Amino acid sequence: MPDDTDEGRQLEARLRSPLFTDLYELTMAQAYEAERMCGEAVFELTFRKMPEPRNYIVAAGIGDVLDFLTNFRFSASDLEFLGRRGGFSREFLTRLESLQFTGDVYAMPEGSIVFQNEPLVQIVAPIVEAQLVETFVLNQIHFQSLAAAKASRIVESAQGRTVVDFGSRRSHGTDAALKVARATYLAGGHGTSNVLAGKLYSIPVFGTLAHSYIQAHDDESAAFEAFATVYPGTTLLVDTYDTIEGVRKVIELKRRLGERFRVSAVRLDSGDLGSLAVESRRMFDEAGLMEIKIFASSGLDEYKVQNLVRSGAPIDGFGVGTNLAVMEDAPALDMAYKLVEYGGKGRLKLSSKKVLYPWRKQVFRQSENGHMIRDVVGRFDEPISGEPLLQPMLRRFEAPARIDVNESRKRLERELGRLPNQYRRLDKADTPYPVTFSDRLQCDLASLRSQFERVTR
Amino acid sequence: MPDDTDEGRQLEARLRSPLFTDLYELTMAQAYEAERMCGEAVFELTFRKMPEPRNYIVAAGIGDVLDFLTNFRFSASDLEFLGRRGGFSREFLTRLESLQFTGDVYAMPEGSIVFQNEPLVQIVAPIVEAQLVETFVLNQIHFQSLAAAKASRIVESAQGRTVVDFGSRRSHGTDAALKVARATYLAGGHGTSNVLAGKLYSIPVFGTLAHSYIQAHDDESAAFEAFATVYPGTTLLVDTYDTIEGVRKVIELKRRLGERFRVSAVRLDSGDLGSLAVESRRMFDEAGLMEIKIFASSGLDEYKVQNLVRSGAPIDGFGVGTNLAVMEDAPALDMAYKLVEYGGKGRLKLSSKKVLYPWRKQVFRQSENGHMIRDVVGRFDEPISGEPLLQPMLRRFEAPARIDVNESRKRLERELGRLPNQYRRLDKADTPYPVTFSDRLQCDLASLRSQFERVTR
Repeated sequence: MPDDTDEGRQLEARLRSPLFTDLYELTMAQAYEAERMCGEAVFELTFRKMPEPRNYIVAAGIGDVLDFLTNFRFSASDLEFLGRRGGFSREFLTRLESLQFTGDVYAMPEGSIVFQNEPLVQIVAPIVEAQLVETFVLNQIHFQSLAAAKASRIVESAQGRTVVDFGSRRSHGTDAALKVARATYLAGGHGTSNVLAGKLYSIPVFGTLAHSYIQAHDDESAAFEAFATVYPGTTLLVDTYDTIEGVRKVIELKRRLGERFRVSAVRLDSGDLGSLAVESRRMFDEAGLMEIKIFASSGLDEYKVQNLVRSGAPIDGFGVGTNLAVMEDAPALDMAYKLVEYGGKGRLKLSSKKVLYPWRKQVFRQSENGHMIRDVVGRFDEPISGEPLLQPMLRRFEAPARIDVNESRKRLERELGRLPNQYRRLDKADTPYPVTFSDRLQCDLASLRSQFERVTR
Repeated sequence: MPDDTDEGRQLEARLRSPLFTDLYELTMAQAYEAERMCGEAVFELTFRKMPEPRNYIVAAGIGDVLDFLTNFRFSASDLEFLGRRGGFSREFLTRLESLQFTGDVYAMPEGSIVFQNEPLVQIVAPIVEAQLVETFVLNQIHFQSLAAAKASRIVESAQGRTVVDFGSRRSHGTDAALKVARATYLAGGHGTSNVLAGKLYSIPVFGTLAHSYIQAHDDESAAFEAFATVYPGTTLLVDTYDTIEGVRKVIELKRRLGERFRVSAVRLDSGDLGSLAVESRRMFDEAGLMEIKIFASSGLDEYKVQNLVRSGAPIDGFGVGTNLAVMEDAPALDMAYKLVEYGGKGRLKLSSKKVLYPWRKQVFRQSENGHMIRDVVGRFDEPISGEPLLQPMLRRFEAPARIDVNESRKRLERELGRLPNQYRRLDKADTPYPVTFSDRLQCDLASLRSQFERVTR
């Protein structure tokens, strides 16, 4: 099963205008051109600080980046717009007309676990090209990686019970809704309520009915009967007026109609989900309806799911909406796209005590007895033991890597199995996962720094 | 100046698949069809609770809703996907093939101030049509209204100084980035760094250079000189290595090169922005460069902007990124799309103590001496004094209202002028803005409730 259907790819490609960029990328590009700065640049995407309520992030979104880069073309109307806006020379606009992305992309494969200070995407290209793609690359990797990390926590807290993304209505726009749906599946969730996401990414779609359906009928029992007639074996929403009354009506209908009324589950969508689930379960079991499952939604997050699971609430699955969709507890990372090499020289940035390590890097993941113990960030070609995480995704004259959400899902599952338990828990681990910089990089940094200080002071 | 260019509309229209919907909308629709429920439904979009750090929300996004509804068509490939997924009859798929949205839409005009419990969008349509559009309508109005409210607070806190959206890289996906850019302009901001937003919405775009440009040069002064040569009168970023050193270099270059080095502003992007601005201002003024302005960015939100402004920091403009883009302090509302009328009857929902008022409504805004004093929510046709806020936006056989972001911007400015001061401040007002339900609606609710209880108990 391919990750994205061809039609999905085509639809998304249309969204990937090269004008989805901060204006300064274009102004810088024109200046580079004017100065004949055509050297190769290395940019790395990294975040400095793990957000408080996270122990790990999940690399995601590289497929969109590869599609963007391989389709990077300014249209006539894009150039017309830039010309009309002003500030760009005819010469530069002509240059943009033929511009393509010719660089290499290395990245952690989708579904990899990533920590603070680790480059997760690395772009090696002529500086104009590498600069122009910054905004889109950041926008997609930042958001999708955060969403996959959030979804992973929810799936972990559900301990094997069903998790479905219900967040589309509260996501920040349509792109976010689609990517959260995909991220949920990547993270081991069962699927999404979003039909378009199902079509674009070939992931499972779930859903039955809302309160409005019940309300549109004059009587709740009549609504249940009508819906189960159209959809034998459906899930019924029982809390429109009173949850326990709703459960009672399901049992009555079952008694009265027998095989003509087939229901496989009910959904609780308000109130104290734990105690309502216990009471509903008891009522179904007493009525001999052990096969009817209980599905819960309404204001859930990973902590509430964990509490429900730990308390033994008889809930078989969770629909998670707003909190997953907007990632309320960690909606952003301090992720940045930093120039670390240009024209064969390592590049520094020193402002505000946030030191940027220069030079192109690699991340080496070291394990013991099947468990990750430490990551070392070194120079790209440094001989360091451990698994190198940055892999080629796009190289000139080669087809880009094909990203398959099912592969990514398996990778994350495998990686979580190797992650020490203290980082898999919802609570913050006592110490961050160890990520160190190699001696060589430390030395490179010190050396560049002292050179820089000699020059400027 | 039109809000959306035609090309923009076309590009966005492609994003508006009718499959951008929760699956249950489709399953309910098929059930309504099977039951021959073709009556007219009234759905209203409302939020119940003003988020803690907000005193008002700004209605936004209706233009996207109108475009979605007027272009609502299932494509052959959509129907093929639904057929392949299963669960939908041939008859229903044939019905979808010819389905269009034929209903009426009423809404608060974009840029209106909206409070808790007030319907801000109202859809009156055959129930199948009204049900199918729920997810998209919620997704866009919820997010865009929240973004406009957030941006409005930031603009208010800047007290007339320039505010530019820098958030595209941290927004949740591409749609969010574009809509935040538009919302910032709607809220009175000066523009955005996002070029595509500039093209799609005809709003001003700003940007000069990033740290990478400075880093790619071996020497900061050389970088400043080169950039100002390409862009006479530009803004220079001075904090790549050390802010005060950067300012000193600008002054030195100005002394050395005179008219050949024209800079209109510097941007501070790290450290203690207030004291760095004071020191930079003092240095420029001493050097006789009173005309050089100071622009600040880096981790700003409305509180930081307010503190800088109140402390008298000599900052002329602000670039606001992450906090605006992800609306960290209030990323979601409990906004819902509720059935309030079907087949000529008011509809209830009672679950979990959250009472839903039945019947189609209108919001009447009452003023005294040019200030808003109270909103009353009544029946749609109820004779209540005050300005009725829900206006027709789309009526069958008529062209939809044309939404112009410049009009919306003016409306918000006007409305803020009428809003009592306690609600314009960043801090929570002592009491929420008064929104009451009319006696008639209270009576309608009580009557429907007692009818309902007589039937079910």
